[in-house]
Amino acid sequence: MSYFKNVSNIQFEGAQSKNDFAFKHYNPNEIIQGQKMEDLMRFSVAYWHTFTGDGGDPFGAGTAVRPWDHLSGMDLAKARVEAAFEFFEKLGVPYFCFHDFDVAPEADTLKETNKNLDEIIAMIQDYMKTSKVKLLWNTANMFTHPRYVGGAATSNNADVVAYAAAKVKKGLEVAKELGSENYVFWGGREGYETLLNTDMKLELDNLGRFFHLAVDYAKEIGFDGQFLIEPKPKEPTTHQYDFDVATGIGFLKTYDLDKHFKFNIEANHATLAGHTFEHELRLARVNGLLGSVDANQGDTLLGWDTDEFPTDLYSTTLAMYEILKNDGLGSGGLNFDAKVRRGSIDTDDLFHSHIAGMDAFAIGAKVANQLIEDKVFETILADRYESFNDGIGRDFVEGKADFHKLEEYALGLEPIQNKSGRQEKIKAVLNQYILNVK
Amino acid sequence: MSYFKNVSNIQFEGAQSKNDFAFKHYNPNEIIQGQKMEDLMRFSVAYWHTFTGDGGDPFGAGTAVRPWDHLSGMDLAKARVEAAFEFFEKLGVPYFCFHDFDVAPEADTLKETNKNLDEIIAMIQDYMKTSKVKLLWNTANMFTHPRYVGGAATSNNADVVAYAAAKVKKGLEVAKELGSENYVFWGGREGYETLLNTDMKLELDNLGRFFHLAVDYAKEIGFDGQFLIEPKPKEPTTHQYDFDVATGIGFLKTYDLDKHFKFNIEANHATLAGHTFEHELRLARVNGLLGSVDANQGDTLLGWDTDEFPTDLYSTTLAMYEILKNDGLGSGGLNFDAKVRRGSIDTDDLFHSHIAGMDAFAIGAKVANQLIEDKVFETILADRYESFNDGIGRDFVEGKADFHKLEEYALGLEPIQNKSGRQEKIKAVLNQYILNVK
Amino acid sequence: MSYFKNVSNIQFEGAQSKNDFAFKHYNPNEIIQGQKMEDLMRFSVAYWHTFTGDGGDPFGAGTAVRPWDHLSGMDLAKARVEAAFEFFEKLGVPYFCFHDFDVAPEADTLKETNKNLDEIIAMIQDYMKTSKVKLLWNTANMFTHPRYVGGAATSNNADVVAYAAAKVKKGLEVAKELGSENYVFWGGREGYETLLNTDMKLELDNLGRFFHLAVDYAKEIGFDGQFLIEPKPKEPTTHQYDFDVATGIGFLKTYDLDKHFKFNIEANHATLAGHTFEHELRLARVNGLLGSVDANQGDTLLGWDTDEFPTDLYSTTLAMYEILKNDGLGSGGLNFDAKVRRGSIDTDDLFHSHIAGMDAFAIGAKVANQLIEDKVFETILADRYESFNDGIGRDFVEGKADFHKLEEYALGLEPIQNKSGRQEKIKAVLNQYILNVK
Amino acid sequence: MSYFKNVSNIQFEGAQSKNDFAFKHYNPNEIIQGQKMEDLMRFSVAYWHTFTGDGGDPFGAGTAVRPWDHLSGMDLAKARVEAAFEFFEKLGVPYFCFHDFDVAPEADTLKETNKNLDEIIAMIQDYMKTSKVKLLWNTANMFTHPRYVGGAATSNNADVVAYAAAKVKKGLEVAKELGSENYVFWGGREGYETLLNTDMKLELDNLGRFFHLAVDYAKEIGFDGQFLIEPKPKEPTTHQYDFDVATGIGFLKTYDLDKHFKFNIEANHATLAGHTFEHELRLARVNGLLGSVDANQGDTLLGWDTDEFPTDLYSTTLAMYEILKNDGLGSGGLNFDAKVRRGSIDTDDLFHSHIAGMDAFAIGAKVANQLIEDKVFETILADRYESFNDGIGRDFVEGKADFHKLEEYALGLEPIQNKSGRQEKIKAVLNQYILNVK
Repeated sequence: MSYFKNVSNIQFEGAQSKNDFAFKHYNPNEIIQGQKMEDLMRFSVAYWHTFTGDGGDPFGAGTAVRPWDHLSGMDLAKARVEAAFEFFEKLGVPYFCFHDFDVAPEADTLKETNKNLDEIIAMIQDYMKTSKVKLLWNTANMFTHPRYVGGAATSNNADVVAYAAAKVKKGLEVAKELGSENYVFWGGREGYETLLNTDMKLELDNLGRFFHLAVDYAKEIGFDGQFLIEPKPKEPTTHQYDFDVATGIGFLKTYDLDKHFKFNIEANHATLAGHTFEHELRLARVNGLLGSVDANQGDTLLGWDTDEFPTDLYSTTLAMYEILKNDGLGSGGLNFDAKVRRGSIDTDDLFHSHIAGMDAFAIGAKVANQLIEDKVFETILADRYESFNDGIGRDFVEGKADFHKLEEYALGLEPIQNKSGRQEKIKAVLNQYILNVK
Repeated sequence: MSYFKNVSNIQFEGAQSKNDFAFKHYNPNEIIQGQKMEDLMRFSVAYWHTFTGDGGDPFGAGTAVRPWDHLSGMDLAKARVEAAFEFFEKLGVPYFCFHDFDVAPEADTLKETNKNLDEIIAMIQDYMKTSKVKLLWNTANMFTHPRYVGGAATSNNADVVAYAAAKVKKGLEVAKELGSENYVFWGGREGYETLLNTDMKLELDNLGRFFHLAVDYAKEIGFDGQFLIEPKPKEPTTHQYDFDVATGIGFLKTYDLDKHFKFNIEANHATLAGHTFEHELRLARVNGLLGSVDANQGDTLLGWDTDEFPTDLYSTTLAMYEILKNDGLGSGGLNFDAKVRRGSIDTDDLFHSHIAGMDAFAIGAKVANQLIEDKVFETILADRYESFNDGIGRDFVEGKADFHKLEEYALGLEPIQNKSGRQEKIKAVLNQYILNVK
Repeated sequence: MSYFKNVSNIQFEGAQSKNDFAFKHYNPNEIIQGQKMEDLMRFSVAYWHTFTGDGGDPFGAGTAVRPWDHLSGMDLAKARVEAAFEFFEKLGVPYFCFHDFDVAPEADTLKETNKNLDEIIAMIQDYMKTSKVKLLWNTANMFTHPRYVGGAATSNNADVVAYAAAKVKKGLEVAKELGSENYVFWGGREGYETLLNTDMKLELDNLGRFFHLAVDYAKEIGFDGQFLIEPKPKEPTTHQYDFDVATGIGFLKTYDLDKHFKFNIEANHATLAGHTFEHELRLARVNGLLGSVDANQGDTLLGWDTDEFPTDLYSTTLAMYEILKNDGLGSGGLNFDAKVRRGSIDTDDLFHSHIAGMDAFAIGAKVANQLIEDKVFETILADRYESFNDGIGRDFVEGKADFHKLEEYALGLEPIQNKSGRQEKIKAVLNQYILNVK
Repeated sequence: MSYFKNVSNIQFEGAQSKNDFAFKHYNPNEIIQGQKMEDLMRFSVAYWHTFTGDGGDPFGAGTAVRPWDHLSGMDLAKARVEAAFEFFEKLGVPYFCFHDFDVAPEADTLKETNKNLDEIIAMIQDYMKTSKVKLLWNTANMFTHPRYVGGAATSNNADVVAYAAAKVKKGLEVAKELGSENYVFWGGREGYETLLNTDMKLELDNLGRFFHLAVDYAKEIGFDGQFLIEPKPKEPTTHQYDFDVATGIGFLKTYDLDKHFKFNIEANHATLAGHTFEHELRLARVNGLLGSVDANQGDTLLGWDTDEFPTDLYSTTLAMYEILKNDGLGSGGLNFDAKVRRGSIDTDDLFHSHIAGMDAFAIGAKVANQLIEDKVFETILADRYESFNDGIGRDFVEGKADFHKLEEYALGLEPIQNKSGRQEKIKAVLNQYILNVK
């Protein structure tokens, strides 16, 4: 059967197309920086939002109308797999991502839960044999079930820590089995509700220990995908330990994990932490820790994670700029950790939204690429920081100037002249590059 | 002459006193955890807010009415020194803090500026000889002058970096001369206005280099005070590199500076970064990096640094709890980086505000001490985390359980039972402890 | 049967009591401003949080362990009624509040849904006959069901508007039947997700029309309770029309509804809108529109409605100050629109949390009362605004000074002297009043 | 002399121009909706940011390098007038705006201050005779001087109220003299620092009285420009009375001023109040109260008014959509209440920034116009709200359906079907319209 009869395979038709179910900018075969756009972008569908999500919110029940709404249990799980692979093919994305909990229902015991999971994973594996789609990453959902009320790896209850370990162990086995390119940790409950009943030191130490055990086990079973931490500042917790990339860097270094982990950076998590998306990407990039991207956008006037599909071209352009400067995402990809709005109730909206997001990132890629080809920012930086190319600046950078030498130089200075940062002009230039995208 | 004729030396008179110019809770000689409250609290006056500040804000000129308003230049600087020491004595605080720029006016050249500074420092030194007040920390103001438009140590202009180095060099010499117990870096301009013209990697590397040069020079001249970084997320910059304690930890470890620096934590900076004050204190404490405190409070409904005098007893209690658990602040102190409101225009308000802050922290200290004596939080934690005392929890903590062992344990578990976190009851208990303070 | 076997009727035992299940400050029979505290506070339990809520959040399933967890449908609904009245009695609160949806399950058709509701309302009515508890307010839940995806009275779909009208009609009949003292509208979905598909003018006009129909119908059936609007800025919508009290005032006046409605003010909604709780209360009070209070508290570092039980004594004191200056709440009350934290999973926590909130408001009432008896703020205002008591100030206030007269006066002025606002001292005084509460 | 030698008169050169000092999109003579773009946009330069501003911020001195930096007092004031008119002409804007304080220095007495002002106003009037530039609005600065510490019209000090009245009286005379098209009130200090010492009722009443006196005086002298209120939620106050448009509507209706005032809406003030720019414009428009616009943009990750030049094309497009639907701005205009960044220190940046802003709004106008010509949003709304065109929807809108009729209809309904809101698709369409701008 078909779950999406309204929609045929999505094609690239160019900016003037009036077809809502066509790409206007994303052309998988177009070459950017020597590689096909498909290989550069590495788009991925998030199973949870697109096949499990129902449009519910804290004040309301689900609104989405789906062809699998009449099913439940394993029947529902299987129908979703079928629908997912039809969707992947029609959309033409090369990757998908999932939590264990998205694909197979939790049973009464861990053993039965694993059995459910095994059955669905086998089904997914079968589908993957005849599909081009690959697994970008998987993970274990360690936040939905009430057992995780006090955390998973950082739970105050050792039973929960053990249970979480069993879940990750299984998750790594699934990753190995399906050839996943990464394994992600989002620590939704790894934080605290109140410091008043929290042993922060023990919890952080336990988190470090837990990650080492995961690294050890991956090695043991030969899973060589990249481990990723996905920072988020808060929500559902009052304070999540992996607050942002900077916090993650400190944590990884403290627990000697920085060789084993990179970051999965989500746009909306960035803004919730008070940063721009591009800030988080830049910080990870300059530290060699940019792993993968959860491509969405937030609403900075709202205080929670809205997980909107990314359509802001400023954001996609500056994100793709960082990604291109990073020589791509390696084993990572652009995963649409994004959900259609509660009001977008039709299955058609699943396509509209992914097309909107893929086109927005394709535009961003083209604009960023043109900016790089024209050395726009590179020229600005070369001029702005030129004083470090020779003289006292060079000495300082090369470690040849101590405070004595710097002071001596400073005492001889005429009043210092600075250069204009030209922010307004740069923003106008950026607008021109966006409007001139081809 | 006297600058504060209305006010005599402030005394402890107890909670029932109706004298506005008396301490109702802060009794310097009262013993808490084996030491005099004076030695525990280590209160400090911030020179800039109290003697240099005028109540101006971005939309308005200064409102404060001060006895030195008719003076200018070095005369003004000297009058402020006189007033400051009168104030310290009347208030009975053991410490003060200053930026170079607060105490002596900037001249046309660095040489002349240093000459101004030398003259005032000599005057301060003289006053210190006959006063009990000591210097908690000093620093160089590297944010007010237009030369720092693009940063100081992270300026895009090498001349500015050299100039900043000369300022810090002088600052360390002043610190040595006055016996300062710490030297602080607040990187007000060490960040960026826009990523579009910023070389983040070079700037961060330069900041790391700069700090190493400072450490080297301190060693050279035998200044053995503690170096402190004061995190702030943003303002005046769009993004400051030392965003918060967690970010600072990552930075210090990346640049191999974590042996040389601790944190100077400001309450209002914490909330601007999305954290509670006590979170920042806790995080620094459990990492052994709690250095000193800028004691103030913000208004979480406002988006800028209001630097209010601390009067919120919840905040002072939880802050003092962290400080007592840290066995005090070592060479640090409680510095009132706080300014009277624009509407508090009288010199009397300088006393009212410091008394309000000192009493609020004294109350916090007494409440926190009672909570510790009664093992209130310790009992909660012991119960909540007891599963790590033996069995699988202990094995995990001691590194004796790998994923195999944890999974095996988890497979044998009955449905997991968690304990209530009891947050509401704990908050009610906290209220009782505050109300019952003696 | 008993649902809360651990707990007996809660008694006032005074501040030194060590009994967690006793009031330490709330003494229903204590007299404040001439009336019993019970009659002044008019505490109310929110049915939805306490009997329907399960601790679920957007990222996790319910965690609460309740004696009715094994039931479903009407059996569950009935068990909750039994539990509720046991709870009301043990807690000793005089009021409760509910949405239709809280007490009786929605069925397939409106007719059947009404039948379910009738059955439960009859049961509640029976219980009320033998209980002292009364209904503070009821309302129709017009936000949970997917039909309200685009709003209720402001839906883009006229069918939904009609359906909502039927729900409110029924709600008013229930209110009449149970002798409810108020009827509340919280417009959770009355707003928009995006302006891009929203006809704001039509929606606002429809909301005005809808409220008039409600007023007409209440008159028709002789329901003379007070209508209340409950402002909230956003969540679940991107923008709710009843943003805050000020917005509501404009709306009520625009649609000629200000004679028929007052406000139900929620603390957490105030802070989400960028105001303090006391600001919203004050604004409603000085406009004669303070109707009732949803007593809770938010976390200003989080961007969503946390609905915590109120324990912040500053907030309860300043709220009670406004309420006392308003001569109480009239037909309104202090309704605990508050939920135990996700981690507070036991039924005992339902008592702990209500006791915490009732004691916090009782303390607030005592402190506010003492402040009023001592004319603390009244004295400050009398002094601060004294210039309006005579001369040009009095002329201005009495409408006897036009711009000519004011200019003439101003031209003759010496440099204007202002008085200190004394904010820091006032805050220290407030602390003393709180600590000295008896 | 010339103050801006680097720059000749700015011309429209089209999108492909490489000339930084040319308009790429703003063509004053291009026709949009039947009028020249020049007459539609009504661009205005803000005197304070562009000629008085120096790049200073709360933590730093001014950075701007200006040809008038060596002057002071009235000489400085006159040089700025000369520079301003050279700037207006070179930029080709038809309007400017100022506060009295921007153009003429405050003297020791009101009389002398007025004399300074008269001298400069005469000079401006002379320049206006030979210039095409007109005065969009003027206002009295009633926030900078320390006398306004407690407010102007809402000061606790009647002397200040009288002084403010004299300032506004003079302001209206200046407005009349220069043919200003509007008079603006921005109540920067009309609010409170703390409710603890504030008589909100008296202050609001006084504000209402003051506005009536201004209306009376304008009538008396025959000034028939439009009165405008400029809402802002907070900063510099903790809470400003004119919080946002909705608050202003309530205030104007409460004090019977809604016939005399419209709103001057600032983008950055909108976002600080938690609204989008287009929300504020829409709300004012549907209430017939859209007066003028302060065209800038904020940074929603920062908590203060950044007053950036507007370059965000989403914002300018949606703003221009509201303005076109409003049939333009009447006597209002697009005033650049925007300042170059602290780092944009050159006079050239004044041109770069205005060009960036004018081009951004010109693009917005073209995109909005195309959206309207293609009835993009109109079609969406017609479809989404079609149920109000007949049947029960029409009855409801026309006031022909009471709760009985609506209930009867609802009881007969099948399960209600809603239509998708299609938000993601709409956003993709908006992107296409922006990218396809000509």
